[in-house]
Amino acid sequence: MNRRRFSEGLALLALAPSLPAVAQTSATLRTNPERLRKRLEDLSGFGRPAGGTFADGVSRIGFSDADVQAHEWLKSEMRAAGLEPRVDAAGNVSAIRPGTVAGLKPILFGSHIDSVRGGGNFDGDVGSMSSLEVMATLNEKGVKTRHPLEYVVWAAEESNYGSGLHGSRMAAGLIEAGEFDRVQNGISKREAMKKLGGDAARIAEAKRAPGSFAAYLELHIEQGGKLDRAGVPIGVVEGIVTIDDYDVHVRGFANHAGTTPMAERRDALAAASQVVLAVQQIANGEAGAQVGTVGQMSVKPNAPNVVPGDVELTVEFRDLDGAKVARLGDALKQRCAEIAKATNTEIEVVFTSRHQGARATPEIQAAIEKAAASLSLKTMRLPSGAGHDAQAMATLGPMGMIFVPSVAGISHSPREMSRWNEIAQGADVLLATILRLDDAVPTAP
Amino acid sequence: MNRRRFSEGLALLALAPSLPAVAQTSATLRTNPERLRKRLEDLSGFGRPAGGTFADGVSRIGFSDADVQAHEWLKSEMRAAGLEPRVDAAGNVSAIRPGTVAGLKPILFGSHIDSVRGGGNFDGDVGSMSSLEVMATLNEKGVKTRHPLEYVVWAAEESNYGSGLHGSRMAAGLIEAGEFDRVQNGISKREAMKKLGGDAARIAEAKRAPGSFAAYLELHIEQGGKLDRAGVPIGVVEGIVTIDDYDVHVRGFANHAGTTPMAERRDALAAASQVVLAVQQIANGEAGAQVGTVGQMSVKPNAPNVVPGDVELTVEFRDLDGAKVARLGDALKQRCAEIAKATNTEIEVVFTSRHQGARATPEIQAAIEKAAASLSLKTMRLPSGAGHDAQAMATLGPMGMIFVPSVAGISHSPREMSRWNEIAQGADVLLATILRLDDAVPTAP
Repeated sequence: MNRRRFSEGLALLALAPSLPAVAQTSATLRTNPERLRKRLEDLSGFGRPAGGTFADGVSRIGFSDADVQAHEWLKSEMRAAGLEPRVDAAGNVSAIRPGTVAGLKPILFGSHIDSVRGGGNFDGDVGSMSSLEVMATLNEKGVKTRHPLEYVVWAAEESNYGSGLHGSRMAAGLIEAGEFDRVQNGISKREAMKKLGGDAARIAEAKRAPGSFAAYLELHIEQGGKLDRAGVPIGVVEGIVTIDDYDVHVRGFANHAGTTPMAERRDALAAASQVVLAVQQIANGEAGAQVGTVGQMSVKPNAPNVVPGDVELTVEFRDLDGAKVARLGDALKQRCAEIAKATNTEIEVVFTSRHQGARATPEIQAAIEKAAASLSLKTMRLPSGAGHDAQAMATLGPMGMIFVPSVAGISHSPREMSRWNEIAQGADVLLATILRLDDAVPTAP
Repeated sequence: MNRRRFSEGLALLALAPSLPAVAQTSATLRTNPERLRKRLEDLSGFGRPAGGTFADGVSRIGFSDADVQAHEWLKSEMRAAGLEPRVDAAGNVSAIRPGTVAGLKPILFGSHIDSVRGGGNFDGDVGSMSSLEVMATLNEKGVKTRHPLEYVVWAAEESNYGSGLHGSRMAAGLIEAGEFDRVQNGISKREAMKKLGGDAARIAEAKRAPGSFAAYLELHIEQGGKLDRAGVPIGVVEGIVTIDDYDVHVRGFANHAGTTPMAERRDALAAASQVVLAVQQIANGEAGAQVGTVGQMSVKPNAPNVVPGDVELTVEFRDLDGAKVARLGDALKQRCAEIAKATNTEIEVVFTSRHQGARATPEIQAAIEKAAASLSLKTMRLPSGAGHDAQAMATLGPMGMIFVPSVAGISHSPREMSRWNEIAQGADVLLATILRLDDAVPTAP
């Protein structure tokens, strides 16, 4: 991704430095928690394991049949709420609610409704259904806004076909080389996209121009345990972490476990184990919220009676500070060189990708805090350790994210859970923030 | 396996405490190295990768079509050497050459011809073909022995259907519970055995009685690098190590790699890495030739962006001293308890099996050394870190093993290699040892 474009977008769309007192309307307007809950429960039926219940979560993989059915249901729900859905060439669904002042750019908000395999009912769904509920509430109450409001549900946010944020990346023009030709389960992404109404040949039409929206807002579950542990209902996201991915390949020599003395082994797994612990030490080695993870490992030949000759593992580092993330990677390379020498193995460290994070726009963070305060809800600032569509949008314009608690921090699991009352509070804060930004942002670009 | 039975066997069959001077015959008699090499090269054609050469090794899995074809070829080679093959209910092939003194028990010798998947041309084959060459040489030269000589090729020595030493274990009556019902590639062991002429229903007929042979001898490649490094052509095996196997299950908690702070992780892979290094430390923690290996590991959910929640790994310890092997396992359990506590994980250590080793009979070790000396070949005593059919035979009577060098210690690999001249020397030492034992062992049981 392109950090320069992000900065330019911000410069183009600088928000008013100070915000006026909150309007009475936004302080008293509330979304309908029963209606929101019902939509979340209805949505959970698409991709639910056969014979399962709400507690069994969903596998609503992007472009799957369950995802396609959920998108059809979504469009009918949008129409019922007075919105006219349109589908772009990436498969994103959106709808515009006109504003009262001509020439103002829309305030854009939404999330996604696809899930990981074996995922929960809240990741993406909470923001998508709350945003729809915001639109439904405004229509129901006949509230007019100065800016047009645009609701969006991004296609295929979860990692799929080798990378995530499909719809929002397409909207930001951040297409990876050859990504439409990637094949999964025998079907290319180019073909799979069509199931959601997408069209790779016309993908340029899905691109949004830098500066084309006044602000992008996304409500999401935290997917971590900070809010839940602190008992704070609203998280104000400071930014989305930058992620650097590495593939580490340890080459030793496979040999008979009975006949190879300890001193003569070139044990790739013993070396890899040192790498795993080094990643932990590197991440813990300085103050801050950075994390380092070895999540995947494969061992060859992987037999109880053979000294492992070959181990491949993944390393990722995350932090809001991209420079720090790069520094952690440098430390990894140095430690791996030391471990290779000490273990008589070869260790290759390949940097595979950077997922550029994004800082949330300070003025939007402040607006969320004031919106929450107007509803007497406590807030906490925190980084997002997970990636979100908001980071693609941040390359185009001002961005802010609201988090609601995940019970025990569990996510990407059927056990993922957010409390209904806290989801409703998040929807109310989203609504209040939109109305506050509607008052605050300049009337001329 | 039953250690008491091993001791009883030895007591029954105590060899003469001192051996007479070597007879002139055994010092001058030589096997035919060209014929031996040709048989090894011919045998290597069964199970060779399609389009491959000798250098590509073999996959001659026990009971496979390649193994069946090799057994048919073996029987024709035996007949050509003047032996009459018989097949027992385990699928073992053997042939007896009568002795001159009535009532003497046979001297039994042989090895196996099955291989691991992706194995080499020497493991098992060298002993099997050299033993056949010994018989061919004796027949060709018209040498008579006092004892009957029995040549045997044990079926399916390599780990197959979950455990190794199939044919020799059956001959020792060491059948594992339910082992004939185990299924591999959709076929039960009960069915697979039939391909070699075996019959699980009649398996008791394959059992040999304790004390039914005067001595068991096996020539084998070292599968380690000690002889090759020392430049010593003949290894005199002190015994076969005892192996204790453990399954270790580390249970942490799978969570989002971006949203779970380092301090709150219950990372099963980080804990497992400590276990791998602990195994290494335990094996290196005292003097001796003991080894400890983590050869197999599986990680769940095994995704780059998920903190691993579950890791299973195997641990094995080997040493000639069974008590030491047990002690290393105790140390493992203690270290795992400490690691579990320190990493906030649960670690379960399950002892899965003991492969009882066996000490080689001291008098046979001495006979091998004297036989080698009579051929002006240097010897070295060493343990066998690998398991062999000899350990099953050791539960029935006196046992000895002769090793020839493996170049660079490589085994269970197409790159496994032993030099032709050293193989021939091994065959000559086997022949000389047989003749020496034939002179030495008592004429009455």
